[in-house]
Amino acid sequence: MRADFDIENLDGEARTGTVKLATGSFKTPCFMPVGTRGSVRHLSSLDLSDLGAQVVLANTYHLMLRPGAEIVKNAGGIASFAKWKGLTLTDSGGYQIFSLDPKVDQEGATFRSVYDGSYHKLTPETSAEIQADLGADIQMVLDICPALPSPEETIRESVSMTAEWGKRGREKFINHPDASSRQSQFGIVQGGITPLLRAESTKMTLDTGFDGYAIGGLSVGEGRDEMLDSVSVVTDLLPKDQPRYFMGLGDPVGLISVVERGVDMFDCVLPTRLARHGTVLTTEGKINIRNARFAEDESSLDPGFPESPANHWSRSYLRHLMATDEPTGARILTLHNLAWLFNFVENMRKAINENKFQEFRKETLDIWG
Amino acid sequence: MRADFDIENLDGEARTGTVKLATGSFKTPCFMPVGTRGSVRHLSSLDLSDLGAQVVLANTYHLMLRPGAEIVKNAGGIASFAKWKGLTLTDSGGYQIFSLDPKVDQEGATFRSVYDGSYHKLTPETSAEIQADLGADIQMVLDICPALPSPEETIRESVSMTAEWGKRGREKFINHPDASSRQSQFGIVQGGITPLLRAESTKMTLDTGFDGYAIGGLSVGEGRDEMLDSVSVVTDLLPKDQPRYFMGLGDPVGLISVVERGVDMFDCVLPTRLARHGTVLTTEGKINIRNARFAEDESSLDPGFPESPANHWSRSYLRHLMATDEPTGARILTLHNLAWLFNFVENMRKAINENKFQEFRKETLDIWG
Repeated sequence: MRADFDIENLDGEARTGTVKLATGSFKTPCFMPVGTRGSVRHLSSLDLSDLGAQVVLANTYHLMLRPGAEIVKNAGGIASFAKWKGLTLTDSGGYQIFSLDPKVDQEGATFRSVYDGSYHKLTPETSAEIQADLGADIQMVLDICPALPSPEETIRESVSMTAEWGKRGREKFINHPDASSRQSQFGIVQGGITPLLRAESTKMTLDTGFDGYAIGGLSVGEGRDEMLDSVSVVTDLLPKDQPRYFMGLGDPVGLISVVERGVDMFDCVLPTRLARHGTVLTTEGKINIRNARFAEDESSLDPGFPESPANHWSRSYLRHLMATDEPTGARILTLHNLAWLFNFVENMRKAINENKFQEFRKETLDIWG
Repeated sequence: MRADFDIENLDGEARTGTVKLATGSFKTPCFMPVGTRGSVRHLSSLDLSDLGAQVVLANTYHLMLRPGAEIVKNAGGIASFAKWKGLTLTDSGGYQIFSLDPKVDQEGATFRSVYDGSYHKLTPETSAEIQADLGADIQMVLDICPALPSPEETIRESVSMTAEWGKRGREKFINHPDASSRQSQFGIVQGGITPLLRAESTKMTLDTGFDGYAIGGLSVGEGRDEMLDSVSVVTDLLPKDQPRYFMGLGDPVGLISVVERGVDMFDCVLPTRLARHGTVLTTEGKINIRNARFAEDESSLDPGFPESPANHWSRSYLRHLMATDEPTGARILTLHNLAWLFNFVENMRKAINENKFQEFRKETLDIWG
């Protein structure tokens, strides 16, 4: 089902709006936290509701191994399985082709399970089918994401394989009644940081035609400028009335930079992973709470963000919890970092709606640039 | 400050009532969860409020090493440090004399820090002083707890050393204005499972005179019958108008058995540790949620306890979280086990107040015996 993008305001290329799916809608720009195995680490689905999350990611590769797609399907899909009232998106397993380096041929990718060493083949077709079972509101097509830098030939091959897989994945999706009747499927653009290949990949993805479009294969080793030039090549070619999703970005400067180029959605493990290591996003910038200078600091975690669910406790106490590896510390910092990032995105939304995006961008760069 | 016990009802020797401290009061029987390092693993102080916890334990040995008593003192004490609105009790470090087997002489125990290998001496006097800094509502005297079985000579020595340390710890406490003005100090009875030594230890502890009395050195390897006989020897000698605390017990049968003998308070890591390993206390008895039979079980965790904060999720989902080591699973099961045990104790309270303790005991034994 085509995901429509209803525009609310445009400030330069930066845009606010609503993405409308068969099963619900969400406001953009939208940061989507990552719940790889069906939970965001340390948080429950009720916590995510309290935080105001709109869309939560889950991962096809991990869920097909544990607990298995059948169990998730029988529970009514991943949202129902996790008793999550919001929307969901499943990654296709494409990211694991990048991170786990499985054997890849024209047909698909053959993985060894990280759990028990058994072999599993993921093809564009099986990925679409498994994602139909997982039942998220948005599924992603299986793609090939090379690391950067890679030889131009590797990038070229990944573009052509991604296009070929895209066609096959799209066909399987369209002919799968459970999928096409209630899910949206997003295509993924590859092409590294070579403008011609990015443009080519965008056109081939558009030729196949998807319900929404993602920019993949960036934020994987290249410089920020190269990344942003590549984003612009893609967003210039994408339709204005469908959502645009940059895969794998979660830092404030990254977010303003892609939103400035017309991106609507992004996800990243960063804010939650940072939290588990004691790194806190604050209105003054990043701090690591494990630092000795916080040992006797009785101020709240981020006085500049009074709504933080972590501000109930002092920096001194939170430092102690992290220094002694108490999981309560990781949980409280995870709640904070997500709350902080959602608040950041909400402020960005307001700035765009008030045609003050450039001021917001400058303020963000002053602290985070 | 003497802890008064106001009796509400007596059903046999089982009793309900209120323990009144200088700083607040709590209803008994009372199960106290353990927050060794200043947090119950996976939970925050707000979670403990939601669960209805009355008194939370913390540990002198661990807190004196990390973050250090000075930091806790400057934060206003352990409750203020953790922003916990309820009452607190600090163990003296006596349990670590049992579990870490440090060098012990007449003066005290010399520990090597589990954190950095540095040496730390804990004496009855320094334990009282450190606990004054930690600022809990109840502090425990430093005692010697031998493993069971031990040679009678070892038990005898521990009784005499515990009595000697008790006198010294009590004197330090009484002469410490911050401590004696607002804290209560409990004495600890030792004596293994030898009735004469238990009686002797009780009398010596009463001779010194404390604000409340604890039964230590049990649930450390002996049989249940031997344990209970020893409890009866002690409770028969203790005053009726002061609280009685059995240290280190948290299973349903154990709780009814010591309450039947007139005990008011107990603590244990068991319900929270079990939760982290997937073992769940339910109205039907203990289950391990990791078991394959729960893989597709879409019923809630404990249908017989509809108030459980875990019942929002299915057994299938919680099993998946535990099987994939997602900390969200440990958290949800920790919330459940504590909620379940608090509910169990509350039901026991009601039964005593309605003079139906023996019926409650029989029902409990039918499931848990």
